[in-house]
Amino acid sequence: MRDPRGRLIAFEGTEGTGKSTQLRLVADALRRDGHRVRLTREPGGTPLGTEIRRLVMHADTDVPSPLTELLLYLADRAQHLDAVIRPALAAGELVLTDRFSVSTIAYQGYGRQLDLDTVIRLDTLVRGDVSADLTILLDSPVDIGLRRAHGDDRFHRADVAFHQRVRHGFLALAGQTPDRFHIVDVTRPCEDVTATIVSAIRSWLQTR
Amino acid sequence: MRDPRGRLIAFEGTEGTGKSTQLRLVADALRRDGHRVRLTREPGGTPLGTEIRRLVMHADTDVPSPLTELLLYLADRAQHLDAVIRPALAAGELVLTDRFSVSTIAYQGYGRQLDLDTVIRLDTLVRGDVSADLTILLDSPVDIGLRRAHGDDRFHRADVAFHQRVRHGFLALAGQTPDRFHIVDVTRPCEDVTATIVSAIRSWLQTR
Repeated sequence: MRDPRGRLIAFEGTEGTGKSTQLRLVADALRRDGHRVRLTREPGGTPLGTEIRRLVMHADTDVPSPLTELLLYLADRAQHLDAVIRPALAAGELVLTDRFSVSTIAYQGYGRQLDLDTVIRLDTLVRGDVSADLTILLDSPVDIGLRRAHGDDRFHRADVAFHQRVRHGFLALAGQTPDRFHIVDVTRPCEDVTATIVSAIRSWLQTR
Repeated sequence: MRDPRGRLIAFEGTEGTGKSTQLRLVADALRRDGHRVRLTREPGGTPLGTEIRRLVMHADTDVPSPLTELLLYLADRAQHLDAVIRPALAAGELVLTDRFSVSTIAYQGYGRQLDLDTVIRLDTLVRGDVSADLTILLDSPVDIGLRRAHGDDRFHRADVAFHQRVRHGFLALAGQTPDRFHIVDVTRPCEDVTATIVSAIRSWLQTR
């Protein structure tokens, strides 16, 4: 470790791109390299966030409006930053999170079509001085991802056009700050994807 | 009813000022006058909001940070506006809500001491074009209110200084737009308080 300051790496992508699996595998590899790795996720990186995740993704009551949904995700983020991310960064850990701000902009802005500037302003207000130092964007065509994805939360029932907009959002955001993104094609075999990500993170860490 | 357009009347005040009781009594009186009255509350005016209310007021997990708490209340409001308030106003109903924006500014701004401008901006963003046409502020000294209040949610355990700041906030906000507030001293007998509020709302409705 060259620098005692922690780093925040976000894994982003649409449904069925294998984020959770890759996160675990990449975390294992980085731990073997000697890094202190904190694995976390949004929503649901805190006990309260787990409750929020249940509310927003498996609402058995009324379906949240797009703005309600945005505010619930931001509430989850505020708690996550306070209880997990900021303390871990202050302790010099390498924090790997399954989704962060880019997902909010892609899903709530591009996907649900809330006003993009509003989404970005609210996210910035909640994040304060914390932003992902590096974003690993796991990318695949939407139909392949949806076919891979399973489970019965309501996202998987949402239409393909929605996921197309989200993917477009992710790629547009990556295009805006290419030095902070690493786009990985996940249609290749799992172990190739892991190796690509680990190698990208290792190179990136050496330049810090 | 002189006007087919609905009206939004918010009942606000610190703990133990008898808001819920007064709301029911006042709603009964206004219904006897022939008004179509919708009685609702924040948080918890929708099924999803009831879940959010449970999260924020009776969190059995971690305690929400002040910003998390603000965002959860705003998520509740966004859903409440969408599912209850806007449709009821459009249908010409007289909507009486147990808390609205003024509580957010008083509790999260003055009480939890989040940046006031931020709280107001976020609330305005969520409310859009809806605001309370009239606010009934039920006021009493904090020690009397806290002695009256019972139940075990965590607000009642919060310190007196917090509730003093909240009361100060309510009164400051009332002072800023006195034409939209009616302050009621609730240390008097319950039936006097009800009569005062009903009479204030009747006069106000006649001037609309």
